[in-house]
Amino acid sequence: MINGKYEPLTIQNLARRLVLIPELTALVGADIGCWDVKEVGDGNLNLVFIVKSSAGSAIIKQALPYVRLVGDSWPLPLYRAFFEYHALTRQAARAKDSVPQVYYFDNNQALIIMEYLEPHKILREKLILGETVDHLADTLGKFCARTAFRGSDLSLDTAKVKSDRALFSGNVAIPAITEGLVFCDPYFNAEMNSNTPGLEKIVEVLRSDIEMKSRVQHFFRLYSAQQDTMCHGDLHSGSIMCTSWDSKVIDPEFATYGPFGFDLGMLFANYFMAFFSQPEHRSDNLEGYQSWILEVIVDTWEMFVEEFSQLWNTERTGMLYPKTMFEDQGHSSERALQDLLNDIWRNSLGFCGIEMHRRCLSLAHNADFETIEDLGRRASLEARNLMMGRDLVLHSDNISSTADLVKLAHKFNAENFI
Amino acid sequence: MINGKYEPLTIQNLARRLVLIPELTALVGADIGCWDVKEVGDGNLNLVFIVKSSAGSAIIKQALPYVRLVGDSWPLPLYRAFFEYHALTRQAARAKDSVPQVYYFDNNQALIIMEYLEPHKILREKLILGETVDHLADTLGKFCARTAFRGSDLSLDTAKVKSDRALFSGNVAIPAITEGLVFCDPYFNAEMNSNTPGLEKIVEVLRSDIEMKSRVQHFFRLYSAQQDTMCHGDLHSGSIMCTSWDSKVIDPEFATYGPFGFDLGMLFANYFMAFFSQPEHRSDNLEGYQSWILEVIVDTWEMFVEEFSQLWNTERTGMLYPKTMFEDQGHSSERALQDLLNDIWRNSLGFCGIEMHRRCLSLAHNADFETIEDLGRRASLEARNLMMGRDLVLHSDNISSTADLVKLAHKFNAENFI
Repeated sequence: MINGKYEPLTIQNLARRLVLIPELTALVGADIGCWDVKEVGDGNLNLVFIVKSSAGSAIIKQALPYVRLVGDSWPLPLYRAFFEYHALTRQAARAKDSVPQVYYFDNNQALIIMEYLEPHKILREKLILGETVDHLADTLGKFCARTAFRGSDLSLDTAKVKSDRALFSGNVAIPAITEGLVFCDPYFNAEMNSNTPGLEKIVEVLRSDIEMKSRVQHFFRLYSAQQDTMCHGDLHSGSIMCTSWDSKVIDPEFATYGPFGFDLGMLFANYFMAFFSQPEHRSDNLEGYQSWILEVIVDTWEMFVEEFSQLWNTERTGMLYPKTMFEDQGHSSERALQDLLNDIWRNSLGFCGIEMHRRCLSLAHNADFETIEDLGRRASLEARNLMMGRDLVLHSDNISSTADLVKLAHKFNAENFI
Repeated sequence: MINGKYEPLTIQNLARRLVLIPELTALVGADIGCWDVKEVGDGNLNLVFIVKSSAGSAIIKQALPYVRLVGDSWPLPLYRAFFEYHALTRQAARAKDSVPQVYYFDNNQALIIMEYLEPHKILREKLILGETVDHLADTLGKFCARTAFRGSDLSLDTAKVKSDRALFSGNVAIPAITEGLVFCDPYFNAEMNSNTPGLEKIVEVLRSDIEMKSRVQHFFRLYSAQQDTMCHGDLHSGSIMCTSWDSKVIDPEFATYGPFGFDLGMLFANYFMAFFSQPEHRSDNLEGYQSWILEVIVDTWEMFVEEFSQLWNTERTGMLYPKTMFEDQGHSSERALQDLLNDIWRNSLGFCGIEMHRRCLSLAHNADFETIEDLGRRASLEARNLMMGRDLVLHSDNISSTADLVKLAHKFNAENFI
């Protein structure tokens, strides 16, 4: 335990302040003279330190009382560390080996000590560099299926679901970022919006599409009200760390009870943005790498279906779709499962389309596009992404297969909107 | 305040125990010699006393630590009085004059002192007797619209919605009754089930209909997860008290955050059961009275739409469907409203069908049918009700108007299934 009230760590005082935490010294030793401390927080919200010694390593993540990306003009409660901790421990239990191990949590200091993933790097960087990751779709498909299924009334005792819903209902300020930046800001002239010059016509197309905006709000209603399961809440390619063969999911401080398809939709969107941005990142093997990204999407969904179905058949112990109503009467529950999977698929596509808009139009853009220096080319690629997002929001109910989805991506990738 | 730990009131000790509560003596005076105390709890769960004097009257409602209908073999937490109190005060604020006034709440004794509604009687009794109630559809349509809208992210600050969701997530045991008796038990051989002899074939039709059972579970998922608003949770015709022109909603201890259409669906179902049971309650003016019941359903929905639309246009201050995305850009939000109303309509029909099953097949049947002594006739009328329920569950997405719904009711009312 660290004494005293909350105070942000610095590179200078970190060792002195944390040296009495046995969970940390068990990892890196108690001789702070041998600790190598670096601050590496490149995200939008938090302080992140790596502590290394010859004995081992650890990550120290500490929340700041404001949004790091914006500064102290945007205060943000420290309690997000509390929700990150509770999300991480649940994810670890529900999807083994999918998240960094947590060694220590200090609510007062909004601080988590966890496993340093090495030599992992952020998936988004790899996607920009054109690197492939073996088992990526398997790992993420399973992660989404396991956390979705095992956090829901399909699996848990409903008293546990209800108490976890109550717990995560306390996470007001962090999901509020999603509520604003994702579901509203892209569709009006919000203060923190920005977009690449040249996209004005596309922005106008989106903002004047009343039918699409109604659909966006339908999905917003689902995000805010349909509390199927504990979602990661921010599953973009910056929340995934990979080697060439191993992937881990990090940063669940946006954790909230939400729809089964929400995390999948966010993830798909970030893959599509990687896909559409590729022409400005490489010329060699462009089509090959773009195809690999689309395969990851297809395989992620297929692994999700496989794993979710497996859990449906082996761990369906919650109150929903009880066996008494199906198997115990000699009736297959396959039809019910397919209906549910179809619903998850359709909703994930809606969320996907909205995330594709958000990352080009409101705050917190993706490096996939942002690192493209030629603004004309950037706008042109973003336009494809934005217009496909619109199609997904409008027609999510009518895209019935991954093959149709891939076809759609190729179609928009070949169009020039500006 | 009453001292000491929880103890159920009796007719004998009620006056002595409550005489020091100023909120009560303000109503009925402090001279307990003049109090007339009666126990009138005819519901399934609680003690209900009427206290009268020449000065005035009050209802004393106290929870019992078990389900009254079943006995102490089915324990039920006293905290339901807490949720009833919190629901009543919210309903009073959101739908003025629609619920009895609350004068006093004692959490420790699980006790609420509230307005005695006189000369109101239970709507179900009136429906069995063939009595009409002026303004019934107006009052209930408005009640459903106002509580739905004003308890949701359409209206409230989302921090308030989230804290109320957390609050009502604590209501585990009472919604569990709905989870079991409504959404599961009718569809398998559950221990507490009972049905009128002669319905076996119909029960078999329902239980062997895998598609329908999948739909039932879809609606169960919505009931459990889609936390749009604070629902009454048990809005049957025994939860409504009426004179010939005034109606009040009582007994919200099942209050839970749930889908917008849930209360409407329960209400419609109870009207349909009144409708189908009529041939055994009267021969004079049978068609006229049945038509009146169907008109109440139609008018309730129309009033719901009118009031919900009015609130949409005047009180849409929550985070969903923000004006920034519609009106502020000169865009109508009418399309979004219609989509949302259609969704509410369809879901209400699904919930309606399920409630129609539950009241004939699992625990806690309705007097509408139960008071029919000729079991053959009872079964025959219940069969119409059950088969229409099945149709609603299966085809709720395809019944696009109240006219279609009325047609469906007439169709099933003319069929003989057994």
